[in-house]
Amino acid sequence: MRIDILTLFPQMIESFMNESILGRAQKGGFAQIVLHDIRDYTTDKHHKADDYSFGGSAGLVMKVEPIYRLITKLKSEREYDEVIYTSPDGETFNQPMANSLSLLNNVIILCGHYKGVDHRIREHLITKEVSIGDYVLTGGELAAAVMTDSIVRLIPGVLTDEQSALSDSFQDNLLAPPVYTRPREFNGWSVPDVLLSGNQALIDQWQMDQAMERTLALRPDLLK
Amino acid sequence: MRIDILTLFPQMIESFMNESILGRAQKGGFAQIVLHDIRDYTTDKHHKADDYSFGGSAGLVMKVEPIYRLITKLKSEREYDEVIYTSPDGETFNQPMANSLSLLNNVIILCGHYKGVDHRIREHLITKEVSIGDYVLTGGELAAAVMTDSIVRLIPGVLTDEQSALSDSFQDNLLAPPVYTRPREFNGWSVPDVLLSGNQALIDQWQMDQAMERTLALRPDLLK
Repeated sequence: MRIDILTLFPQMIESFMNESILGRAQKGGFAQIVLHDIRDYTTDKHHKADDYSFGGSAGLVMKVEPIYRLITKLKSEREYDEVIYTSPDGETFNQPMANSLSLLNNVIILCGHYKGVDHRIREHLITKEVSIGDYVLTGGELAAAVMTDSIVRLIPGVLTDEQSALSDSFQDNLLAPPVYTRPREFNGWSVPDVLLSGNQALIDQWQMDQAMERTLALRPDLLK
Repeated sequence: MRIDILTLFPQMIESFMNESILGRAQKGGFAQIVLHDIRDYTTDKHHKADDYSFGGSAGLVMKVEPIYRLITKLKSEREYDEVIYTSPDGETFNQPMANSLSLLNNVIILCGHYKGVDHRIREHLITKEVSIGDYVLTGGELAAAVMTDSIVRLIPGVLTDEQSALSDSFQDNLLAPPVYTRPREFNGWSVPDVLLSGNQALIDQWQMDQAMERTLALRPDLLK
């Protein structure tokens, strides 16, 4: 899978893309993540990629031309399954969306910044608008990083133990049960006896009960 | 405001914390963001901060001792309003939560990684569990970055134009209206005439209508 991220501030997320799971996924050949600086596609001498909003509202707007040039160039090189724009208006990102995006070959993610992109980009070039949650960020760079991380870890082979992704919260509409590790006792706080019992059937039952109990208490909406 | 971020992988988000708005907020003295490497608080010679899960599930669990030591040390230095744990189980982060967290003085954010932290940390040291959305990430580092970005930009003085945060999506339960910038025409795509009319009353009305229309079409739940 290839993900092209288009941004005015590649340095905001550059180091993240090379760390941890994303770095390993790229070294292992499972994913290719390419950051593009939109400013490289400006043609004026000041490399102006943003300008004031028509109509006099506060804040800057990302200009249409450099983004158009960059997307057109990428599309001439390969077929893209989706051209995604990160925006608070978009469809809310969730685990089922991460699952389906992880099956695609080539995806562009355009990061909004300031007041957003010129609306003509959204009307004519974007195929999917996605929000990572109901809050406002300085820019779409973090949203692109969140989506990329969440998607790439689902590609088979990326996680060392495939079980690890399957037993995550949300994959079965249940929150994960509590986890414990050594020591058995610390500061007077003990690990539940059942986990030390060695009886796997009892342990499995306890974990399922806990997952159900936690989901009912904290996120009953997941069970609907 | 001071935010202490506790993580096993400070390098994942280090550069992000010094860029853009967060960098400016720190240079301007509006916010102090301190990254702590949990591994520095291990006492064994291998600096082991994680271990296998009791009960035999897949994946590693973050150990209780180094986190306990680090949180205890921080609490001995100043009062904390909240000790937040980033987890898919947590309360969903949103703009009202960002608004109220931006009024606090000192906040700790503990980043979960692998299968999460030993549950005793959550029972005894954490005051608030927060999720940035219904999807699974490699770790809580990105969640901490999202929360920090979203909170710090609300601190008065951080954004150059305070209007900019007030007119954001969600602050008035409406999505933002479309924005446009120069040129007036590109590739046959035009800016709506009203925005070029110079009639501010008409423009304001158009923007309000568009905001309402977009919210009704895309996110009617915000109006309930």
